[in-house]
Amino acid sequence: MSSTHTHHRNETQIVADPTQPTIVITREFDAPPERVFRAYTDPELVVQWLGPRRLTMLIDQYDARNGGSYRYVHRDDDGTEYGFHGVFHEVRPNERIVQTFTYEGFPDGVSLETAVFEDLGGRTRVTGKSLMDSVEARDSMIKSGMERGVREGYERLDELLGRRQTGDAERRTETES
Amino acid sequence: MSSTHTHHRNETQIVADPTQPTIVITREFDAPPERVFRAYTDPELVVQWLGPRRLTMLIDQYDARNGGSYRYVHRDDDGTEYGFHGVFHEVRPNERIVQTFTYEGFPDGVSLETAVFEDLGGRTRVTGKSLMDSVEARDSMIKSGMERGVREGYERLDELLGRRQTGDAERRTETES
Repeated sequence: MSSTHTHHRNETQIVADPTQPTIVITREFDAPPERVFRAYTDPELVVQWLGPRRLTMLIDQYDARNGGSYRYVHRDDDGTEYGFHGVFHEVRPNERIVQTFTYEGFPDGVSLETAVFEDLGGRTRVTGKSLMDSVEARDSMIKSGMERGVREGYERLDELLGRRQTGDAERRTETES
Repeated sequence: MSSTHTHHRNETQIVADPTQPTIVITREFDAPPERVFRAYTDPELVVQWLGPRRLTMLIDQYDARNGGSYRYVHRDDDGTEYGFHGVFHEVRPNERIVQTFTYEGFPDGVSLETAVFEDLGGRTRVTGKSLMDSVEARDSMIKSGMERGVREGYERLDELLGRRQTGDAERRTETES
Protein backbone atom coordinates (compact mmCIF):
# COMPACT_ATOMS: atom_id res chain seq x y z
CA MET A 1 0.00 0.00 0.00
CA SER A 2 1.53 3.30 -1.06
CA SER A 3 1.63 6.26 1.28
CA THR A 4 -0.54 8.24 -1.15
CA HIS A 5 -3.18 5.53 -1.05
CA THR A 6 -3.13 5.54 2.76
CA HIS A 7 -3.67 9.28 2.88
CA HIS A 8 -6.57 9.00 0.48
CA ARG A 9 -8.31 6.27 2.52
CA ASN A 10 -7.79 8.06 5.82
CA GLU A 11 -9.32 11.37 4.82
CA THR A 12 -10.99 13.38 7.59
CA GLN A 13 -14.63 14.26 6.82
CA ILE A 14 -16.11 17.15 8.77
CA VAL A 15 -19.83 17.77 8.28
CA ALA A 16 -21.76 20.63 9.86
CA ASP A 17 -25.48 19.89 9.53
CA PRO A 18 -27.32 22.80 7.86
CA THR A 19 -30.18 22.79 10.40
CA GLN A 20 -29.02 20.83 13.49
CA PRO A 21 -26.43 22.10 16.04
CA THR A 22 -23.99 19.29 15.29
CA ILE A 23 -20.59 18.59 13.76
CA VAL A 24 -19.91 15.03 12.61
CA ILE A 25 -16.28 14.05 12.02
CA THR A 26 -15.43 10.72 10.38
CA ARG A 27 -11.91 9.33 10.09
CA GLU A 28 -10.37 5.92 9.51
CA PHE A 29 -7.12 4.66 11.03
CA ASP A 30 -4.76 1.83 10.07
CA ALA A 31 -4.99 0.13 13.45
CA PRO A 32 -7.56 -2.04 15.25
CA PRO A 33 -10.13 -0.44 17.63
CA GLU A 34 -8.22 -1.55 20.75
CA ARG A 35 -5.19 0.54 19.77
CA VAL A 36 -7.15 3.59 18.58
CA PHE A 37 -9.31 3.48 21.72
CA ARG A 38 -6.18 3.33 23.87
CA ALA A 39 -4.79 6.39 22.08
CA TYR A 40 -8.03 8.20 23.03
CA THR A 41 -8.03 7.19 26.69
CA ASP A 42 -4.43 6.81 27.92
CA PRO A 43 -3.24 10.33 28.85
CA GLU A 44 0.37 9.43 27.97
CA LEU A 45 -0.81 8.79 24.39
CA VAL A 46 -3.50 11.52 24.18
CA VAL A 47 -0.86 14.17 24.96
CA GLN A 48 1.10 13.08 21.88
CA TRP A 49 -1.58 13.76 19.27
CA LEU A 50 -4.63 15.77 20.41
CA GLY A 51 -4.68 19.18 18.73
CA PRO A 52 -2.63 21.07 16.18
CA ARG A 53 1.17 20.69 15.95
CA ARG A 54 1.99 24.27 16.91
CA LEU A 55 0.40 23.86 20.38
CA THR A 56 1.87 22.00 23.34
CA MET A 57 -0.64 19.96 25.32
CA LEU A 58 -0.39 19.82 29.11
CA ILE A 59 -2.72 17.43 30.92
CA ASP A 60 -3.93 18.31 34.43
CA GLN A 61 -6.21 15.31 34.71
CA TYR A 62 -7.43 12.68 32.23
CA ASP A 63 -9.46 10.04 33.97
CA ALA A 64 -11.13 8.31 31.02
CA ARG A 65 -13.67 6.07 32.75
CA ASN A 66 -17.42 6.35 33.51
CA GLY A 67 -17.79 9.45 35.69
CA GLY A 68 -14.14 10.52 35.39
CA SER A 69 -13.06 14.11 34.75
CA TYR A 70 -10.47 15.67 32.47
CA ARG A 71 -8.75 19.00 32.07
CA TYR A 72 -5.97 20.02 29.72
CA VAL A 73 -4.30 23.12 28.39
CA HIS A 74 -3.02 23.85 24.89
CA ARG A 75 -0.06 26.24 25.08
CA ASP A 76 1.02 28.50 22.24
CA ASP A 77 4.67 29.37 21.42
CA ASP A 78 4.17 32.77 23.11
CA GLY A 79 2.87 31.12 26.31
CA THR A 80 -0.82 31.79 25.71
CA GLU A 81 -2.88 28.97 27.25
CA TYR A 82 -6.24 27.59 26.17
CA GLY A 83 -7.94 25.44 28.80
CA PHE A 84 -10.53 22.72 28.20
CA HIS A 85 -12.36 20.50 30.63
CA GLY A 86 -15.26 18.14 31.01
CA VAL A 87 -16.56 14.86 32.35
CA PHE A 88 -16.74 11.36 30.87
CA HIS A 89 -20.37 10.23 30.86
CA GLU A 90 -19.46 6.84 29.44
CA VAL A 91 -16.27 5.07 28.42
CA ARG A 92 -17.22 1.73 26.82
CA PRO A 93 -13.94 -0.09 26.03
CA ASN A 94 -13.08 -0.17 22.30
CA GLU A 95 -16.59 0.99 21.36
CA ARG A 96 -17.71 4.37 22.57
CA ILE A 97 -16.77 7.48 24.55
CA VAL A 98 -19.33 10.12 25.59
CA GLN A 99 -18.01 13.24 27.29
CA THR A 100 -18.88 16.87 27.96
CA PHE A 101 -16.56 19.61 26.68
CA THR A 102 -16.05 23.26 27.67
CA TYR A 103 -13.51 25.68 26.24
CA GLU A 104 -12.65 27.80 29.26
CA GLY A 105 -12.49 30.99 27.17
CA PHE A 106 -16.28 30.63 26.93
CA PRO A 107 -17.14 28.99 30.28
CA ASP A 108 -20.92 28.86 29.73
CA GLY A 109 -20.58 26.87 26.49
CA VAL A 110 -20.88 23.12 26.87
CA SER A 111 -21.01 20.51 24.14
CA LEU A 112 -21.67 16.79 24.30
CA GLU A 113 -19.10 14.75 22.38
CA THR A 114 -19.61 11.14 21.29
CA ALA A 115 -16.90 9.04 19.64
CA VAL A 116 -17.84 5.65 18.22
CA PHE A 117 -15.15 3.12 17.24
CA GLU A 118 -16.06 0.71 14.44
CA ASP A 119 -14.00 -2.37 13.61
CA LEU A 120 -13.22 -2.54 9.88
CA GLY A 121 -11.12 -5.69 10.31
CA GLY A 122 -7.77 -4.50 11.62
CA ARG A 123 -8.64 -0.93 10.71
CA THR A 124 -10.95 1.43 12.62
CA ARG A 125 -13.50 4.05 11.68
CA VAL A 126 -14.02 6.71 14.35
CA THR A 127 -17.19 8.78 14.11
CA GLY A 128 -17.16 11.80 16.38
CA LYS A 129 -20.31 13.82 16.95
CA SER A 130 -20.38 17.20 18.71
CA LEU A 131 -23.77 18.34 19.89
CA MET A 132 -23.99 22.02 20.74
CA ASP A 133 -26.45 24.40 22.32
CA SER A 134 -27.46 26.08 19.08
CA VAL A 135 -26.57 26.31 15.39
CA GLU A 136 -24.91 29.68 16.20
CA ALA A 137 -22.66 28.09 18.86
CA ARG A 138 -21.79 25.36 16.37
CA ASP A 139 -20.95 27.92 13.69
CA SER A 140 -18.59 29.83 16.01
CA MET A 141 -16.85 26.53 16.83
CA ILE A 142 -16.32 25.96 13.07
CA LYS A 143 -15.10 29.56 12.62
CA SER A 144 -12.60 29.18 15.50
CA GLY A 145 -10.41 27.07 13.18
CA MET A 146 -11.16 23.75 14.86
CA GLU A 147 -11.17 22.08 11.45
CA ARG A 148 -7.42 22.50 10.92
CA GLY A 149 -6.70 21.39 14.49
CA VAL A 150 -8.78 18.24 14.04
CA ARG A 151 -7.12 17.29 10.73
CA GLU A 152 -3.64 17.90 12.09
CA GLY A 153 -4.40 16.04 15.31
CA TYR A 154 -5.53 13.00 13.33
CA GLU A 155 -2.35 13.09 11.21
CA ARG A 156 -0.37 13.06 14.46
CA LEU A 157 -2.49 10.13 15.63
CA ASP A 158 -1.61 8.27 12.39
CA GLU A 159 2.05 8.87 13.20
CA LEU A 160 1.62 7.73 16.81
CA LEU A 161 -0.19 4.55 15.72
CA GLY A 162 2.62 3.89 13.23
CA ARG A 163 5.31 4.38 15.89
CA ARG A 164 3.48 2.25 18.43
CA GLN A 165 3.07 -0.57 15.91
CA THR A 166 6.86 -0.61 15.51
CA GLY A 167 7.28 -0.30 19.27
CA ASP A 168 4.87 -3.17 19.98
CA ALA A 169 6.66 -5.36 17.44
CA GLU A 170 10.01 -4.54 19.06
CA ARG A 171 8.72 -5.36 22.52
CA ARG A 172 7.23 -8.60 21.26
CA THR A 173 10.57 -9.58 19.73
CA GLU A 174 12.38 -8.76 22.97
CA THR A 175 9.96 -10.91 24.97
CA GLU A 176 10.26 -13.77 22.51
CA SER A 177 14.07 -13.73 22.43
CA MET B 1 -51.93 36.10 47.72
CA SER B 2 -54.63 33.53 46.93
CA SER B 3 -53.75 29.94 46.13
CA THR B 4 -55.37 30.33 42.69
CA HIS B 5 -53.10 33.28 41.93
CA THR B 6 -50.04 31.26 43.01
CA HIS B 7 -50.93 28.40 40.72
CA HIS B 8 -51.39 30.75 37.82
CA ARG B 9 -48.00 32.44 38.36
CA ASN B 10 -46.17 29.16 38.80
CA GLU B 11 -47.33 27.51 35.62
CA THR B 12 -44.92 25.03 33.99
CA GLN B 13 -44.10 25.89 30.37
CA ILE B 14 -42.75 23.06 28.22
CA VAL B 15 -41.59 24.01 24.74
CA ALA B 16 -40.30 21.55 22.14
CA ASP B 17 -38.59 23.51 19.38
CA PRO B 18 -40.01 22.61 15.95
CA THR B 19 -36.57 22.26 14.31
CA GLN B 20 -33.96 21.90 17.10
CA PRO B 21 -33.52 18.76 19.27
CA THR B 22 -34.38 20.60 22.48
CA ILE B 23 -37.00 20.84 25.20
CA VAL B 24 -37.11 24.06 27.23
CA ILE B 25 -39.01 23.98 30.54
CA THR B 26 -39.67 27.18 32.46
CA ARG B 27 -41.12 27.30 35.96
CA GLU B 28 -41.23 29.84 38.79
CA PHE B 29 -41.10 29.02 42.50
CA ASP B 30 -42.11 31.02 45.60
CA ALA B 31 -38.66 30.73 47.20
CA PRO B 32 -35.27 32.40 46.68
CA PRO B 33 -32.64 30.74 44.41
CA GLU B 34 -30.63 29.44 47.40
CA ARG B 35 -33.53 27.28 48.56
CA VAL B 36 -34.57 26.08 45.10
CA PHE B 37 -30.94 25.27 44.25
CA ARG B 38 -30.60 23.29 47.47
CA ALA B 39 -33.74 21.30 46.58
CA TYR B 40 -32.01 20.43 43.26
CA THR B 41 -28.68 19.38 44.79
CA ASP B 42 -29.25 17.90 48.26
CA PRO B 43 -30.23 14.23 47.71
CA GLU B 44 -32.37 14.23 50.87
CA LEU B 45 -34.51 16.93 49.24
CA VAL B 46 -34.30 15.72 45.61
CA VAL B 47 -35.77 12.36 46.65
CA GLN B 48 -38.87 14.16 47.95
CA TRP B 49 -39.94 15.80 44.70
CA LEU B 50 -38.23 14.58 41.50
CA GLY B 51 -40.68 12.72 39.28
CA PRO B 52 -44.37 11.83 39.31
CA ARG B 53 -46.21 11.03 42.56
CA ARG B 54 -46.99 7.42 41.68
CA LEU B 55 -43.27 6.50 41.53
CA THR B 56 -40.94 6.04 44.49
CA MET B 57 -37.48 7.47 44.01
CA LEU B 58 -34.45 5.57 45.33
CA ILE B 59 -31.08 7.33 45.12
CA ASP B 60 -27.93 5.23 44.65
CA GLN B 61 -25.63 8.24 44.36
CA TYR B 62 -26.23 11.98 44.01
CA ASP B 63 -22.98 13.87 44.17
CA ALA B 64 -24.04 17.30 42.87
CA ARG B 65 -20.68 19.02 42.39
CA ASN B 66 -18.38 19.63 39.40
CA GLY B 67 -17.43 16.16 38.14
CA GLY B 68 -19.76 14.30 40.49
CA SER B 69 -21.96 11.41 39.38
CA TYR B 70 -25.55 10.46 40.10
CA ARG B 71 -27.79 7.44 39.70
CA TYR B 72 -31.35 6.92 40.84
CA VAL B 73 -34.23 4.57 40.26
CA HIS B 74 -37.94 5.32 39.99
CA ARG B 75 -39.99 2.38 41.25
CA ASP B 76 -43.55 1.65 40.22
CA ASP B 77 -46.23 0.18 42.55
CA ASP B 78 -45.74 -3.22 40.89
CA GLY B 79 -41.98 -3.11 41.54
CA THR B 80 -40.90 -2.15 38.01
CA GLU B 81 -37.76 0.00 38.17
CA TYR B 82 -36.60 2.73 35.81
CA GLY B 83 -32.94 3.69 36.23
CA PHE B 84 -31.31 7.00 35.31
CA HIS B 85 -27.72 8.15 35.60
CA GLY B 86 -25.27 10.79 34.52
CA VAL B 87 -22.49 13.14 35.49
CA PHE B 88 -22.49 16.74 36.70
CA HIS B 89 -20.41 18.82 34.28
CA GLU B 90 -20.91 21.97 36.35
CA VAL B 91 -22.68 22.86 39.58
CA ARG B 92 -22.45 26.64 40.05
CA PRO B 93 -24.07 27.44 43.43
CA ASN B 94 -27.48 29.11 43.16
CA GLU B 95 -26.97 29.79 39.43
CA ARG B 96 -26.55 26.83 37.14
CA ILE B 97 -26.37 23.04 36.89
CA VAL B 98 -25.17 21.23 33.76
CA GLN B 99 -25.41 17.46 33.71
CA THR B 100 -25.64 14.49 31.36
CA PHE B 101 -28.66 12.19 31.51
CA THR B 102 -29.29 8.61 30.38
CA TYR B 103 -32.46 6.57 30.84
CA GLU B 104 -31.09 3.07 31.31
CA GLY B 105 -33.90 1.53 29.27
CA PHE B 106 -32.19 3.16 26.28
CA PRO B 107 -28.50 3.07 27.30
CA ASP B 108 -27.13 4.67 24.13
CA GLY B 109 -29.27 7.80 24.51
CA VAL B 110 -27.60 10.70 26.26
CA SER B 111 -28.94 14.21 26.73
CA LEU B 112 -27.28 17.32 28.10
CA GLU B 113 -29.41 19.07 30.73
CA THR B 114 -28.89 22.68 31.82
CA ALA B 115 -30.85 24.32 34.64
CA VAL B 116 -30.45 28.06 35.19
CA PHE B 117 -31.73 29.71 38.41
CA GLU B 118 -32.81 33.35 38.11
CA ASP B 119 -33.45 35.54 41.12
CA LEU B 120 -36.81 37.32 40.82
CA GLY B 121 -36.44 38.98 44.25
CA GLY B 122 -37.32 36.26 46.75
CA ARG B 123 -38.83 34.14 44.00
CA THR B 124 -36.94 32.05 41.43
CA ARG B 125 -37.34 31.25 37.77
CA VAL B 126 -35.78 27.94 36.73
CA THR B 127 -35.14 27.42 33.02
CA GLY B 128 -34.28 23.85 32.15
CA LYS B 129 -32.98 22.96 28.72
CA SER B 130 -32.61 19.40 27.44
CA LEU B 131 -30.40 18.97 24.41
CA MET B 132 -30.80 15.67 22.61
CA ASP B 133 -29.13 13.77 19.83
CA SER B 134 -31.83 14.37 17.26
CA VAL B 135 -35.35 15.77 16.86
CA GLU B 136 -36.56 12.13 16.73
CA ALA B 137 -34.95 11.32 20.12
CA ARG B 138 -36.50 14.50 21.53
CA ASP B 139 -39.93 13.52 20.20
CA SER B 140 -39.77 10.05 21.79
CA MET B 141 -38.85 11.72 25.10
CA ILE B 142 -41.99 13.90 24.79
CA LYS B 143 -44.11 10.86 23.86
CA SER B 144 -42.81 8.89 26.90
CA GLY B 145 -45.08 11.05 29.09
CA MET B 146 -42.25 13.12 30.64
CA GLU B 147 -44.52 16.18 30.53
CA ARG B 148 -46.86 14.92 33.23
CA GLY B 149 -43.94 13.74 35.36
CA VAL B 150 -42.29 17.17 35.12
CA ARG B 151 -45.47 19.08 36.06
CA GLU B 152 -46.21 16.78 38.97
CA GLY B 153 -42.62 16.87 40.18
CA TYR B 154 -42.70 20.67 40.23
CA GLU B 155 -45.96 20.64 42.21
CA ARG B 156 -44.25 18.38 44.72
CA LEU B 157 -41.32 20.82 44.79
CA ASP B 158 -43.79 23.67 45.56
CA GLU B 159 -45.06 21.60 48.49
CA LEU B 160 -41.53 20.83 49.69
CA LEU B 161 -40.52 24.51 49.52
CA GLY B 162 -43.69 25.40 51.46
CA ARG B 163 -42.94 22.81 54.15
CA ARG B 164 -39.32 23.82 54.42
CA GLN B 165 -40.23 27.50 54.78
CA THR B 166 -42.33 26.57 57.81
CA GLY B 167 -39.57 24.29 59.06
CA ASP B 168 -36.91 27.00 58.68
CA ALA B 169 -39.09 29.51 60.51
CA GLU B 170 -39.64 27.03 63.33
CA ARG B 171 -35.94 26.30 63.65
CA ARG B 172 -35.16 30.02 63.65
CA THR B 173 -37.64 30.59 66.46
CA GLU B 174 -36.13 27.74 68.45
CA THR B 175 -32.62 29.17 68.02
CA GLU B 176 -33.78 32.65 69.01
CA SER B 177 -35.62 31.47 72.12
